[in-house]
Amino acid sequence: MVEVKVIGSWSSPFVRKVEMALKMKGVEYEYIEEDLRNKSALLLQHNPIHEKVPVLLHNGKPIAESMVILEYIDEVWEGPPILPQDPYDRAMARFWAKFIDDKCTFTMWKACWSTGEEREKLKEEATEGLKILENEIEGKKFFGGDKIGVVDHTANFIAYWFPITADFVGLELMTDDKFPNLCRWANDYINDNFVKENLPDKDGYIAILKTI
Amino acid sequence: MVEVKVIGSWSSPFVRKVEMALKMKGVEYEYIEEDLRNKSALLLQHNPIHEKVPVLLHNGKPIAESMVILEYIDEVWEGPPILPQDPYDRAMARFWAKFIDDKCTFTMWKACWSTGEEREKLKEEATEGLKILENEIEGKKFFGGDKIGVVDHTANFIAYWFPITADFVGLELMTDDKFPNLCRWANDYINDNFVKENLPDKDGYIAILKTI
Repeated sequence: MVEVKVIGSWSSPFVRKVEMALKMKGVEYEYIEEDLRNKSALLLQHNPIHEKVPVLLHNGKPIAESMVILEYIDEVWEGPPILPQDPYDRAMARFWAKFIDDKCTFTMWKACWSTGEEREKLKEEATEGLKILENEIEGKKFFGGDKIGVVDHTANFIAYWFPITADFVGLELMTDDKFPNLCRWANDYINDNFVKENLPDKDGYIAILKTI
Repeated sequence: MVEVKVIGSWSSPFVRKVEMALKMKGVEYEYIEEDLRNKSALLLQHNPIHEKVPVLLHNGKPIAESMVILEYIDEVWEGPPILPQDPYDRAMARFWAKFIDDKCTFTMWKACWSTGEEREKLKEEATEGLKILENEIEGKKFFGGDKIGVVDHTANFIAYWFPITADFVGLELMTDDKFPNLCRWANDYINDNFVKENLPDKDGYIAILKTI
């Protein structure tokens, strides 16, 4: 019996983050692709509250919410740490991961799929969040410092999925002239070998965008 | 020099949660009351992103976001654990703390201070969240099991501040007939001796509500 399973969706940045964490730790797992337009009994049983992916199943016990899953993976399995070791650095990582999840990702996604006044409002909101990140990444290679860390992976939507999506829908937001540090960071992040292997290919992702 | 300081507000459930965690660990700290209508340079310097309380200062280094602060306190100081020890139980505690913070507290607070259609919408949303908690607490004394834990403290707004606020503004929501388990839990929680000592007195809180 495979003791670790991930219920996921190919095109979810949150799922990719969990998969990268498992791979970093060298944990073997079974991946179960979920059809989010026709949710499975398995998903509804194991994440009845949010009905969202990712869900980690460890010996049959379910855990939902990607950051909660990452903390769990870090505590249960040996191997390279997911969160920083120093308590203050851990607190900072948790703070920034929460900021990205709460203030950036969803707003940026919604901005892509809205129009008119609503889009302008969301663009403004997203710009506020990105300005803060632009400031935070200034002078650093990655959010985690010299090496890619949990905050970088949490921001994988901003680095990879968002630019493709924005381009696809014709949204101008995270431009090189306005966010030079963030764009530099995004480029470094997606060109890291491990990250590259764990992000979906662009054409496949665009094919999915065409169905939205 | 006092090494630990809390920038707080007397009437913030998030601040009380942090203070309770410090007291559980036996950590001496200096409390600095913040005037949220006229924010201090100290607050703006140490939490420039959110400009909110609580902020924990440890040897001058600031940490914001109450759950991030709690994890930090638990990692840095000896004493009774704040989060459960078992990784799966910890994951569940993090999941529920996040659920309460994201889906209940703010919506319930906004429902108190809105009117008409907006209030009805918020009431509905809050009811959805409370139903899930009602189900979760069924058959358990506290969210933490037999003993009060981090999820109970995270829900301190629901147990104490909300009923007083709802009564003050004339909002009917968390009634005994609709949420018997939650109301029973709230009563047990606020009558715990340690909790009671760490919540503001009702008259003082109502005096503050009158100024809103």
